[in-house]
Amino acid sequence: MIIIMQPGVSDDDIARVIERLEERGYGHHISRGVERTVIGAVGAPEGEKQQVAEQLSRLPMVERVVPILKPYKLVSREYQPEPVTVKVGPAQFGGKQVSVIAGPCAVESEEQLMEAAQAVKAAGATALRGGAYKPRTSPYSFQGLGEAGLELLAQARDLTALPIVSEVMDPRQVEVMAGWVDALQIGTRNMQNYDLLREVGQVGMPVVLKRGFAATIQEWLRAAEYIAASGNLDIILCERGIRTFETETRFTLDLGGMAAAKQETYLPIIVDPSHSMGIHRLVGPMALAAVAAGADGLMIEVHPHPDQALSDGPQSLTPTSFEKLMQQVRTVALAVGREI
Amino acid sequence: MIIIMQPGVSDDDIARVIERLEERGYGHHISRGVERTVIGAVGAPEGEKQQVAEQLSRLPMVERVVPILKPYKLVSREYQPEPVTVKVGPAQFGGKQVSVIAGPCAVESEEQLMEAAQAVKAAGATALRGGAYKPRTSPYSFQGLGEAGLELLAQARDLTALPIVSEVMDPRQVEVMAGWVDALQIGTRNMQNYDLLREVGQVGMPVVLKRGFAATIQEWLRAAEYIAASGNLDIILCERGIRTFETETRFTLDLGGMAAAKQETYLPIIVDPSHSMGIHRLVGPMALAAVAAGADGLMIEVHPHPDQALSDGPQSLTPTSFEKLMQQVRTVALAVGREI
Amino acid sequence: MIIIMQPGVSDDDIARVIERLEERGYGHHISRGVERTVIGAVGAPEGEKQQVAEQLSRLPMVERVVPILKPYKLVSREYQPEPVTVKVGPAQFGGKQVSVIAGPCAVESEEQLMEAAQAVKAAGATALRGGAYKPRTSPYSFQGLGEAGLELLAQARDLTALPIVSEVMDPRQVEVMAGWVDALQIGTRNMQNYDLLREVGQVGMPVVLKRGFAATIQEWLRAAEYIAASGNLDIILCERGIRTFETETRFTLDLGGMAAAKQETYLPIIVDPSHSMGIHRLVGPMALAAVAAGADGLMIEVHPHPDQALSDGPQSLTPTSFEKLMQQVRTVALAVGREI
Amino acid sequence: MIIIMQPGVSDDDIARVIERLEERGYGHHISRGVERTVIGAVGAPEGEKQQVAEQLSRLPMVERVVPILKPYKLVSREYQPEPVTVKVGPAQFGGKQVSVIAGPCAVESEEQLMEAAQAVKAAGATALRGGAYKPRTSPYSFQGLGEAGLELLAQARDLTALPIVSEVMDPRQVEVMAGWVDALQIGTRNMQNYDLLREVGQVGMPVVLKRGFAATIQEWLRAAEYIAASGNLDIILCERGIRTFETETRFTLDLGGMAAAKQETYLPIIVDPSHSMGIHRLVGPMALAAVAAGADGLMIEVHPHPDQALSDGPQSLTPTSFEKLMQQVRTVALAVGREI
Repeated sequence: MIIIMQPGVSDDDIARVIERLEERGYGHHISRGVERTVIGAVGAPEGEKQQVAEQLSRLPMVERVVPILKPYKLVSREYQPEPVTVKVGPAQFGGKQVSVIAGPCAVESEEQLMEAAQAVKAAGATALRGGAYKPRTSPYSFQGLGEAGLELLAQARDLTALPIVSEVMDPRQVEVMAGWVDALQIGTRNMQNYDLLREVGQVGMPVVLKRGFAATIQEWLRAAEYIAASGNLDIILCERGIRTFETETRFTLDLGGMAAAKQETYLPIIVDPSHSMGIHRLVGPMALAAVAAGADGLMIEVHPHPDQALSDGPQSLTPTSFEKLMQQVRTVALAVGREI
Repeated sequence: MIIIMQPGVSDDDIARVIERLEERGYGHHISRGVERTVIGAVGAPEGEKQQVAEQLSRLPMVERVVPILKPYKLVSREYQPEPVTVKVGPAQFGGKQVSVIAGPCAVESEEQLMEAAQAVKAAGATALRGGAYKPRTSPYSFQGLGEAGLELLAQARDLTALPIVSEVMDPRQVEVMAGWVDALQIGTRNMQNYDLLREVGQVGMPVVLKRGFAATIQEWLRAAEYIAASGNLDIILCERGIRTFETETRFTLDLGGMAAAKQETYLPIIVDPSHSMGIHRLVGPMALAAVAAGADGLMIEVHPHPDQALSDGPQSLTPTSFEKLMQQVRTVALAVGREI
Repeated sequence: MIIIMQPGVSDDDIARVIERLEERGYGHHISRGVERTVIGAVGAPEGEKQQVAEQLSRLPMVERVVPILKPYKLVSREYQPEPVTVKVGPAQFGGKQVSVIAGPCAVESEEQLMEAAQAVKAAGATALRGGAYKPRTSPYSFQGLGEAGLELLAQARDLTALPIVSEVMDPRQVEVMAGWVDALQIGTRNMQNYDLLREVGQVGMPVVLKRGFAATIQEWLRAAEYIAASGNLDIILCERGIRTFETETRFTLDLGGMAAAKQETYLPIIVDPSHSMGIHRLVGPMALAAVAAGADGLMIEVHPHPDQALSDGPQSLTPTSFEKLMQQVRTVALAVGREI
Repeated sequence: MIIIMQPGVSDDDIARVIERLEERGYGHHISRGVERTVIGAVGAPEGEKQQVAEQLSRLPMVERVVPILKPYKLVSREYQPEPVTVKVGPAQFGGKQVSVIAGPCAVESEEQLMEAAQAVKAAGATALRGGAYKPRTSPYSFQGLGEAGLELLAQARDLTALPIVSEVMDPRQVEVMAGWVDALQIGTRNMQNYDLLREVGQVGMPVVLKRGFAATIQEWLRAAEYIAASGNLDIILCERGIRTFETETRFTLDLGGMAAAKQETYLPIIVDPSHSMGIHRLVGPMALAAVAAGADGLMIEVHPHPDQALSDGPQSLTPTSFEKLMQQVRTVALAVGREI
């Protein structure tokens, strides 16, 4: 880290900072400029940097402290330079493949789920999504079928051979859900639910980690680091839109952030155009844009009857629109050297 | 709700929407304007409105649906017009009183906590804060002392008679924490952790509900509604800054939003200038501003030695600065007809 | 517009609102619901709606006023349902064509500009960009060559037959610039510089209107409405990123907003991945994403020697990278049924 | 500035960066850490730093460049450590005084303006505001009375002895407006209209510089630096709210940013609670909060009949509410050691 001293500090001030650094096991270089003296701290012991940086920045003779390294390690390209692939059942995320997770927002009934599952399978999806436990902003909204929903998801897997991705919201659900599904999804509102991240990291099953809708790329990768540090590197990141001042769309899909994140991490990243847009007519253009920008996959909401959906109808595609979109996705994927 | 139809809809289109409304138990009024026909839906059965609105908005002949009522009920001024007070041990939030919760970010040691507790008590704080379980963006940062921290908090209460407020992060911790502390705090990253909200709602203990740093006022009140709907109305809201493009301060303290929320709800609202600013020099001005704007209390981080703190040192006040600030807070509180 | 009354209003209150509406020439419908009475105002005289809405919303018996129609007219799909094309010299924006405006951020010298112009022409660009007057956040940064820069741009047009697009910042420059260039660009910081919009609307020359980096889609279209209302419909909109909390990229490119805007307006919309990303490595992915999402063109910064550029070097492509990108853009354009 | 090199750079890479620095007149220090080599550039010639930083950051062996100094000089506390006062006619901004600029959003008529002027004078305002040229998001809204409005403002000054503050939008208006008013206001949408800033900087009259609603503190101070660099240091900064995701209030008033800015600059800073809130009921709490947080003044919209205002009625106070507010402002000002 680099410590920028206040203008006009004395030699004693500098000596006090160096003493602090030495106590914590750091070496140092001093660079005296015309307007500021800057101290470079080197050889930092792992794990304590942020704490030391905060403590130094609280000293009166220090103007600010600039970190040199990124605050994550296991999920970075410095740890593993080449992109990896993550398997969810037979579906592969990363590599040449563009994988598509599709299905309804929530599992509502056997009929709805089987119809959706067969339709997305026929159109070329490689995994089935469906919520059994639903995070809803209102306590009066439909909260999901719970374990009955998980049973229906397993039944849909038997029917279609599609692996199942479903959201886990509570550390207490992790173990039971792991018995039913093929990948656990951490939703946007739980990206910084650290107890949940740790629990999911220990269960030894692929994780789809959605970006918090107000999380920076750095925070997203640090959330992935929590899972990685708990022993699980089978992580698929999912960009799903961030909150901005624009209200024409439900969230602002940050494809530039997705592309930036791909340069930082070797983990596969997929994109969810459904939740980010909140409007079915915009799902198609954003799905194509995501693939063109280099996304390793998509997550798309499909419902047999969106105007009767118990949640997220406005952004759900019908099976027919989804099938048409998949043809376009295939063409764009080919244009950028990928395939579905 | 109001349903705005697409331009040029046919009578059949209108009839289909009305049929839908009747199926769900709504009456209606039709208003045919020059450029749009608008249908007002009346007599909506409780609890289903959002779902019906979403479903209608997915119909091709509907341009958009505008809700009339706010999406919360139990925590609104329509349910209870007058402000209420909430008690945490002997401390009162709401009414003429301005209550101050102070203490370190994290419980680090017996010495640190007892020193902090006695200092904030002496300066006039009415409750003690301190984290036993800490939500940290990095898995390598200090994660709190856990149950040992809770024991120290209880010991500090014995020493100072200050009631204890501490953050709960995991539904599995709720029961044990409820045995040690006087109020449970839901942190900003867990404001939409619905399982945790429900669990906390059932435990029958005052709750300090921090605003999610990317949550709208509406979402904050809906999170409170989750707790209320689980049977607990002893809720203290806490504004702690929102995430914006400005990086000079850690978050942007939204005192305007706090004032707006006070018009919507009868619950007491306090303000945390420490986490929002992230810089100790700005804590004072924002504490005074909060009280002038009508906040019912403050939550302030105080550490005996901020430059040695294991977390949040940069924004922590020393006991001496806190004492000075409390004198100013008292003066401003009097100026707006309140007292500490 | 729809006027939602406060709960519990009297018949007199309602009568007073209706009287107001009648004075301003509106008819009305009343819809009395269980919890609110709603008044629909119909037959609104053009141009005064926003004023009347604001005035009514200030009345104590009114809770809020909801507008029904969008606040722009000439640039909307209701005015002109089908997309149009706009010509800048020989280059066409809109239709099947994807047009690419490329060139350096600022005109720096004859050598730099001619080299850039020939390179972008060879790679397939259809127009040349280059700033003669530069809006710089610091008064000490290079401010552009001014009229000498315009002369060089005209010289580059002679050399390459590419039409010229350049930014105008001051109403006093409009006339002279119109003598040198083929399209005037309104930069992001001037999108709500209404005097400039009016001036540019009167000059009878195509305008590239960049979205303000904190402007909503609605405000962007209303800025276009200013130009249109001044008599000029040759408007090309340009999405160039919005300001959000994310700092990994310079701005957040809002392709979803671009796609939403295309449903609202018939005007062509292009995308500037250079300014939005601020990082040359991310320009390529975002250019491809923009075309896949349906953009009618691109604006890309190309500099012969980005590491010696007087401005925007970090995001400028070299001629070689630009040429490679154009090949990929061509392939993606074909995949979505467009061509360059 | 500090240049952080890519991991694993060669000695040749380092030598190339140093050569670049020497060419531009910089000295250097090298600090070789375990994971990165860092080069400190010292003795930077004024004015070129940002350009050199951008150019270096474009080199392939450079990871990033961190500036050490703030990008403004004349308006910083390093240039002038102690706060100054700025006079607008007889009114003083800065020092012990809290000054209040009040009046209608727009000058609408003689009757309206004289009534407003007398009312705000009676209540204790120290300057009169009123727009003659209005920046309106819609071309169909009332655009101001223009020069007739300026004449009325001068007439109101004769009547009340209050100095006049009015917004200038176009460089061509600067000279004529300077003949009528006592201070020129730069509105939020023109904060980065650099030609206007330069023009206003040269006219030798106090300037009220509103913060752009999407401008960082740094950009705001750099806009002030434009005026200062043109020779005018009589600048009053005005915080008026920033755009965020929250829509309950029109903008988010950033009092924390205001307090942070006061530590960076010696210029007086006032606060506009009217435009930031957009709701008259919230103007009072935010005015009090601003004064408690250390603002040097307020700018408040007052209209004799807000429900008939041609613009900004929803946020305008009546003369009666303004008078009550002024009494409270006085009390809070006293509580923080200030006076009106």
